[in-house]
Amino acid sequence: MIKLDYSGIDKDNLKSGMSISGISATTRAKNISKIYGKKVSVMLDFLDLPNMSESEIVALENMGREISKKNKNFVVLGIGGSALGVSFLENTFVSSIHKKAKTKVTVCDNIDSDSFVSLLDSLDLKKTVFNVITKSGGTSETITQMLIVMDRLKKKKLDITKRMVITTTENNNLHNFAKEHGIPTFLIPVGVGGRFSVLSSVGLLPAVVMGVDIRRLLSGARKVLENGKLNDIKNLAYTTAHINNYYLKKGKTSLVTMPYSDRLKLFPDFFAQLWAESLGKRYDRDGNEVFTGQNPIKTVGVTDQHSQLQLYSEGLQDKLIMFITVGKAHYDEAVAEDYGFAKHLKGVSLKTLLDYEYQSTAYALTSIDRPNYRIELDTISEESVGELIMLCELMTAFMGEFLNINAYDQPGVELSKIYTKACLKVKGYENERKEIKHYADSKKFLSL
Amino acid sequence: MIKLDYSGIDKDNLKSGMSISGISATTRAKNISKIYGKKVSVMLDFLDLPNMSESEIVALENMGREISKKNKNFVVLGIGGSALGVSFLENTFVSSIHKKAKTKVTVCDNIDSDSFVSLLDSLDLKKTVFNVITKSGGTSETITQMLIVMDRLKKKKLDITKRMVITTTENNNLHNFAKEHGIPTFLIPVGVGGRFSVLSSVGLLPAVVMGVDIRRLLSGARKVLENGKLNDIKNLAYTTAHINNYYLKKGKTSLVTMPYSDRLKLFPDFFAQLWAESLGKRYDRDGNEVFTGQNPIKTVGVTDQHSQLQLYSEGLQDKLIMFITVGKAHYDEAVAEDYGFAKHLKGVSLKTLLDYEYQSTAYALTSIDRPNYRIELDTISEESVGELIMLCELMTAFMGEFLNINAYDQPGVELSKIYTKACLKVKGYENERKEIKHYADSKKFLSL
Repeated sequence: MIKLDYSGIDKDNLKSGMSISGISATTRAKNISKIYGKKVSVMLDFLDLPNMSESEIVALENMGREISKKNKNFVVLGIGGSALGVSFLENTFVSSIHKKAKTKVTVCDNIDSDSFVSLLDSLDLKKTVFNVITKSGGTSETITQMLIVMDRLKKKKLDITKRMVITTTENNNLHNFAKEHGIPTFLIPVGVGGRFSVLSSVGLLPAVVMGVDIRRLLSGARKVLENGKLNDIKNLAYTTAHINNYYLKKGKTSLVTMPYSDRLKLFPDFFAQLWAESLGKRYDRDGNEVFTGQNPIKTVGVTDQHSQLQLYSEGLQDKLIMFITVGKAHYDEAVAEDYGFAKHLKGVSLKTLLDYEYQSTAYALTSIDRPNYRIELDTISEESVGELIMLCELMTAFMGEFLNINAYDQPGVELSKIYTKACLKVKGYENERKEIKHYADSKKFLSL
Repeated sequence: MIKLDYSGIDKDNLKSGMSISGISATTRAKNISKIYGKKVSVMLDFLDLPNMSESEIVALENMGREISKKNKNFVVLGIGGSALGVSFLENTFVSSIHKKAKTKVTVCDNIDSDSFVSLLDSLDLKKTVFNVITKSGGTSETITQMLIVMDRLKKKKLDITKRMVITTTENNNLHNFAKEHGIPTFLIPVGVGGRFSVLSSVGLLPAVVMGVDIRRLLSGARKVLENGKLNDIKNLAYTTAHINNYYLKKGKTSLVTMPYSDRLKLFPDFFAQLWAESLGKRYDRDGNEVFTGQNPIKTVGVTDQHSQLQLYSEGLQDKLIMFITVGKAHYDEAVAEDYGFAKHLKGVSLKTLLDYEYQSTAYALTSIDRPNYRIELDTISEESVGELIMLCELMTAFMGEFLNINAYDQPGVELSKIYTKACLKVKGYENERKEIKHYADSKKFLSL
């Protein structure tokens, strides 16, 4: 159902174009076997998620349906990989098409007290279930949210086993706490990284609550998994990774994601984590300092034609654009009357204009030598969204091989976490506490 | 109320730091007089907006209050500069704090048929007012939306003079149509560019409908206008522009905007247009081909610590970070009980943790030589938001002078518009139509 349109990077059309037929079959075979053979990391179990067992699927479906039968609100407490996939699915299948959900799914992925406290104040807690999602079981932001929610539930004398579901890995502190208190729990496989976890219980339980058919989501992902084994340019994830790497080497240090669809508006946020955290690395696998990666830039078409297109046309020539389009819309409507001042729009439908604008923008960019390619979904459905998710996860994995880096860790966020512990007076961080206090005390300000 | 914290770029703290005391007073005086004297462009009338006349303010207040008294929905049809400021204000003052609005303000800034048709289907048109906002009066996307809405209103026999308000410039086709049909109209001054127009009727009418005090918004903006005249490092807009330019010249080709606040979550979208469209230019004023600009990157803290921070720490060293923080929150709540598994969080409030995380992230980045500065708002209010808006508009204007480019046009979007006209069979674009048809016919696809 997914197609790759590579017209905007092909040497027949683009001045600085390339030939995808020149991709090395030997390197490809080697990289495919590294990823599918799980040879480069212990964190490649996301490849198994689409083949989830029937009993696991049924357990998620039963819990999700039970929750949505009895509740008005389902609030996800999570951040990063525990939130971005869920937000993307919610927008795609509910909010963007103004679907009236029986149970509203809200994602809280920040600790902003204004937004979080006002949300809690607005909820009927007797009709709300909180899904705490943290792989480690120790994410400060999520645990803080959870403890504040538990305090409110306690005050209202509500049963935490009915108001909470915990999604985490086996046998960590949070899992043990959940077992002790009889809070329903779903597990995240140890070998699945947060940013690759949307097709685990992390994304699937909220998806069931939204009314999404998770079997079709997984079935779409399986198709891409099969395709990803092909030693052929038709291996979409590999070919796309190759294109990204080719242009990164040519100085395209930013990858713009631009879906022409409000329904896919939050896909760039999901993708940005995948691309940034996986590929933004200081060292390669041989220990060389490389400071590599490609900056993901989040946009939406046609909206950003009126915001970012000027920069993409005339600004720094450091961008490769990944368009995403949708073949068929679910709804459409055409202009019936032009009232004399917009004759060229008479009879034109919204979807037709959207398609024209995409085509015109892509062609204009190609004609001035700005490389771009396009992923087309035939229509928005659980299958095609499952395909898009797995395509991008697999493309990220292959890109990691091109860059020869570990795409599955995130050592660069540790330093900030250490200083936060120091601020929280955790033992063992006394020196860091002094350091950051000194910095804070000597802050340099200018006031209005 | 706004402060600039420059600790993260000062040479005392940052390896590649600078000294803001070295800013040239002569160049500054020259640039201030160019902008305030409106010597570089006829499009500098945004500087007059904060001094709007009493009668204009009253007209906006009366119309906005009247609308919100009688309606459930207020739908803005606009795109780019006609939408991003309104969305930012709506999120800041309504959605992010879950305020129950009497009249819900929705911004339609795309022509996605799925989202737009489903929105129209969900509205009670008898209780809805549509605000058509387009400076030229001819923006295809907005006019298409408007015509479809008019068709629906006609079918329901609803009075367009009660269901629509038009915001545009004087004497264009749309304005003439509005006058002819008696549709209420607000004007956008000719010398105010779309992306600088949020403090005109473009942003102020929707703001009144939201319940925002527009006098305080304008008063905040006036403070920054006054400050922007100072030939002193305390001129916040100028000093910030200087910092941005200094680091752009040193290879920081991306400017990350990272508010630590859900209420300011859409500010980066508003700012991205201002920065990208104003500064992304092929030619400088002397006709040299420069392909300049700085890529705006949209994020939100703490959320993006779990998505983008890895890249900012370990990826390409091409980023300057503009943090935005808020001194005092409106609501807060602390962890009362730790249940044994999160002792270090006991007694910690959401706002305290947010502040610790900001401090830790900023300090960690400074310590590894990643330049960053911070705008601090004392609290979120109409004044401080008005200050933030004008600060960034003025900073953009000064940055245009540093780059010696025209910050007020957008020639790079014309080519795409020409091809769209060709697709729509507008006369005079027959050759372009052949060209784009040929490109579309020879598309290169790979299917799953």
